[in-house]
Amino acid sequence: QHTFAKLGEDWVFLALLGIISSLLSFVMDYGIAICQKARIWLYRDLTHHPAQQYLAWLAFPLFLILFSSGVVHVVAPQAIGSGIPEMKTVLRGVVLKEYLTFRTLVSKMVGLTASLGSGMPLGKEGPFVHVASIVATLLSKLVTSFKGIYENESRTSEMLAAACAVGVACSFAAPIGGVLFSIEVTSVFFAVRNYWRGFFAACCGAMVWRLLAVWFKDEETITALFKTNFRADFPFDPQELVAFSIVGIFCGFAGALFVWFHRQIVHFNRRHKRMNTFLQKNRFLYPAVVTTVIASLSFPLGLGQFMAAELTTHDQVMELFSNTTWSGTNPEVDEAIIISHWSTPYTNIYVNLVIYVVMTFLTTAWAATIPVPAGVFIPVFKMGAAFGRLVGECMAIWFPQGVRIGNTVSSVMPGGYAVVGAAALSGSVTHTISTSVIVFELTGQMSHILPVILAVLISNAIAQCLQPSIYDSIIKIKK
Amino acid sequence: QHTFAKLGEDWVFLALLGIISSLLSFVMDYGIAICQKARIWLYRDLTHHPAQQYLAWLAFPLFLILFSSGVVHVVAPQAIGSGIPEMKTVLRGVVLKEYLTFRTLVSKMVGLTASLGSGMPLGKEGPFVHVASIVATLLSKLVTSFKGIYENESRTSEMLAAACAVGVACSFAAPIGGVLFSIEVTSVFFAVRNYWRGFFAACCGAMVWRLLAVWFKDEETITALFKTNFRADFPFDPQELVAFSIVGIFCGFAGALFVWFHRQIVHFNRRHKRMNTFLQKNRFLYPAVVTTVIASLSFPLGLGQFMAAELTTHDQVMELFSNTTWSGTNPEVDEAIIISHWSTPYTNIYVNLVIYVVMTFLTTAWAATIPVPAGVFIPVFKMGAAFGRLVGECMAIWFPQGVRIGNTVSSVMPGGYAVVGAAALSGSVTHTISTSVIVFELTGQMSHILPVILAVLISNAIAQCLQPSIYDSIIKIKK
Repeated sequence: QHTFAKLGEDWVFLALLGIISSLLSFVMDYGIAICQKARIWLYRDLTHHPAQQYLAWLAFPLFLILFSSGVVHVVAPQAIGSGIPEMKTVLRGVVLKEYLTFRTLVSKMVGLTASLGSGMPLGKEGPFVHVASIVATLLSKLVTSFKGIYENESRTSEMLAAACAVGVACSFAAPIGGVLFSIEVTSVFFAVRNYWRGFFAACCGAMVWRLLAVWFKDEETITALFKTNFRADFPFDPQELVAFSIVGIFCGFAGALFVWFHRQIVHFNRRHKRMNTFLQKNRFLYPAVVTTVIASLSFPLGLGQFMAAELTTHDQVMELFSNTTWSGTNPEVDEAIIISHWSTPYTNIYVNLVIYVVMTFLTTAWAATIPVPAGVFIPVFKMGAAFGRLVGECMAIWFPQGVRIGNTVSSVMPGGYAVVGAAALSGSVTHTISTSVIVFELTGQMSHILPVILAVLISNAIAQCLQPSIYDSIIKIKK
Repeated sequence: QHTFAKLGEDWVFLALLGIISSLLSFVMDYGIAICQKARIWLYRDLTHHPAQQYLAWLAFPLFLILFSSGVVHVVAPQAIGSGIPEMKTVLRGVVLKEYLTFRTLVSKMVGLTASLGSGMPLGKEGPFVHVASIVATLLSKLVTSFKGIYENESRTSEMLAAACAVGVACSFAAPIGGVLFSIEVTSVFFAVRNYWRGFFAACCGAMVWRLLAVWFKDEETITALFKTNFRADFPFDPQELVAFSIVGIFCGFAGALFVWFHRQIVHFNRRHKRMNTFLQKNRFLYPAVVTTVIASLSFPLGLGQFMAAELTTHDQVMELFSNTTWSGTNPEVDEAIIISHWSTPYTNIYVNLVIYVVMTFLTTAWAATIPVPAGVFIPVFKMGAAFGRLVGECMAIWFPQGVRIGNTVSSVMPGGYAVVGAAALSGSVTHTISTSVIVFELTGQMSHILPVILAVLISNAIAQCLQPSIYDSIIKIKK
């Protein structure tokens, strides 16, 4: 009787956790979308002179980032950074002071909305894991104070583990990938008994999050976030597995390089003590400098035209994943629009993609050192997608008839390479295999399952030999 | 240096494990397909009189099942049954005598090929987990005797866990689902450190298994086993989630009922001592009786016409998953062929589907008690698919315009319900959530991710309250 009541209570708790987190996620997405649209609108419609446009392009993110770092500094500095490294230490029993309080929640949410709305190359996933964990803690306190029962240590950590899964699920609508990703990044040993908790909470979260999009007329129905429409009857030729493996190898090295580069920036900032003390006195200076440089680099009339800077991150990924061969001749109207974003009168798509990858690499690693709530998953993900697209477009040029032996022509699908690259690079940076599952849930298609897993395994093997994961690297830095 | 060499050795070992298992799986599939085709051919082309046809229909499975039980009895009786319950006990440290020897491997493979070739409602998955585990053990012995190093206890169990994943991956081409399923059914605690092992071995296995199909011209390229082509832009309306939940609830109860019913049959056989001693003296009598009754019930000119008995299991599932509304008016030619399999001049598709579900339920539970190597996953899976299809077809009739509010017509897709039903029922019988991942990998589509997870969670919750899983039930019976 008692166990049954407790189990029932668990269900309600987990469902509430999922629903509340998804509501918060939806509200934040709404705020972020408004900010991002406002910036594009300001740049395009309100100003007429390049100098004015530049000012608008620069002032908006500058204001938001400074606002974000101000709010975080005043309300709760615990909200700075990703959240996954901290949750990893919390789940191992370390008590971080004030890390899971209501104050931190407010600070994280407001700060995150502002910093992501700025259009900097920052991600939502890690911070949202933190948000969901705080929701779980607050909810758990509410329940225990309401019922007056003793607080159970192991139950709390079970709920926190479920919350991490909810966090990923509510950012990507990826319940399965969310559960696996959260297990991989936070746990060493894992009790199969708790498996369903994460699943149930993540499922509730993802479902409500997508339902909200339907109810608010953003979407027609519940579908994947980056829906692809690849040819399912002949997704790839077995011989292309070699090319996919090469993508995996490159992404493995690139991922390790990214982690190393990020750590070097942090170490560089620390080493210069005089600069350091100066920056600590003027807390807004470092964010301002970084934001100014990055925003200037991405100014659409300058360098930005070579890296599709006028598009939001979501649209960039959608176009990288699209089932269109950019190097093809005679593109249709909607295809030509996509290609126009990724080429200029001076450069072709290959040059643009290379610039995009390199610039995203540099700016993401740098932007991640700004003291605002932000993660790196999504920027790394889009960098991988662009790299995969680059390889795919090269394959499409080198094998215009496809690589199939015989008379049948089955052209190469560069979009598939983009999916593989995204999974491989994000997998190598975070040292997780479950990014493969996340991309399937993000795209809604499993046609590239073997290439994706192959590339993710290869990139993981290489990255794990060379560097710790980005989260372990951050833990090491903070020590 | 030493760790690196050991890690490298692990990679080779896991790759070999995957490749050898997939070769064995492919060879067995080939044998099974020949047997199944021969039976249909014998029934259709060789005989002209109903009595002759009946004899052919009956004699073939009778011979194969008796052969299988004879081989198993003579070579190694350890090969009897599924293999997953035994692997669960082995992985918890119990030593089962002669359970992982070469002799058992031969017995299991020959017996399994014969028993599945007979066309009885039996599955390949569980036994193949056993086969892969034997391969891992033998390979491990070979390596250690070759290198002359000490045998490591924990390493053996790591490899066995990976082998279980390989077993599922090579039967379904489902590496991710295979890893998760094997964790869920065999482990209590799970070390995340070993996660990649299972993944890597399962990926190798699934890849080679599908590559073999391509090389032997069965398939054009690597695709999913039961590929579906559902409408991805509007897979389902959020309101249909209610109907999907109802499928989950029914499957939960049906799964528990199945486990209970299977145990009752075993207990009934044991309770009647006189019958029992008689049967033990005449070892071939029980298999012969069961096979005769089940084959007679499925005779295509008799009751079999109401349950698509002329199709192989693979074709049955393909048709149940097809994106065709069977109750629709004016079907096209290929649609009419599918419908003709599932309706007769006397009955419509609804009656046929009900008969199919009920008969599969009864015959599967009974056939699982024959002492031959065989599992229950696939029969339960197809039963769930048929039940889901039934609900989907009812929905299509009740809501001919779809359930969408507004003027747009988006008809219900009964194939989606079939996928949900298959995942929910197999999940409730085995008490696993990862069947949801397995169906995505089997169908190659993730458009129904939320309905599937929702139904699987509901059916799991119900089944776990009522009965142990089929594997735990078998462990209990054997004690």
